[in-house]
Amino acid sequence: MFPCKTPEPPYYAVIFPFARTEEDHGYEAMAEKMETLAAQQPGFLGIESVTDVNGCGITVSYWASEEAIHSWHHHPEHQKAQAAGKSMWYKDYQLRVAKVERAYGKDF
Amino acid sequence: MFPCKTPEPPYYAVIFPFARTEEDHGYEAMAEKMETLAAQQPGFLGIESVTDVNGCGITVSYWASEEAIHSWHHHPEHQKAQAAGKSMWYKDYQLRVAKVERAYGKDF
Repeated sequence: MFPCKTPEPPYYAVIFPFARTEEDHGYEAMAEKMETLAAQQPGFLGIESVTDVNGCGITVSYWASEEAIHSWHHHPEHQKAQAAGKSMWYKDYQLRVAKVERAYGKDF
Repeated sequence: MFPCKTPEPPYYAVIFPFARTEEDHGYEAMAEKMETLAAQQPGFLGIESVTDVNGCGITVSYWASEEAIHSWHHHPEHQKAQAAGKSMWYKDYQLRVAKVERAYGKDF
């Protein structure tokens, strides 16, 4: 479902804009695996991910607390994926942790 | 530049995931115009926007303050674009206002 359903604020967002390299090296499989694994973590609320034809992408994941973000960041499988991302898959990225204070849908 | 450069936190992010309709009706021109106009507003810090081949997109704009977000939201030209977006261009969307508390680049 896109956009994803999220509870009433406050909650947290991890905003991850990235520019992909041209090589795959298992990127798609890993991205899918990480999305599945993230969804199993305590405090996970949802994820939205879009990549355009030029390899520019934005993934936003939503979390119940800072603690949940911290735990997912330090998950061993995720740590491996992060290292591969840094060395192979991403030309550049930013990672921004933000507290969602208010939210509106189309029918607001 | 993608991802965009932003100052040290704290600052604000407006996270806007959307699902496009199939019709154009001047969408591209309006999106470009709004991006240019947004960049001229006080407190604008940057914008990242990605749309995939299925018409799912995420735009994140960054702002110095809640007040800057409020002013841009109520800008007359932007209000017109919002109305057209609601009625023509977007099947669905969410708009989330968040306070960025920390940020990391690839070289962190």
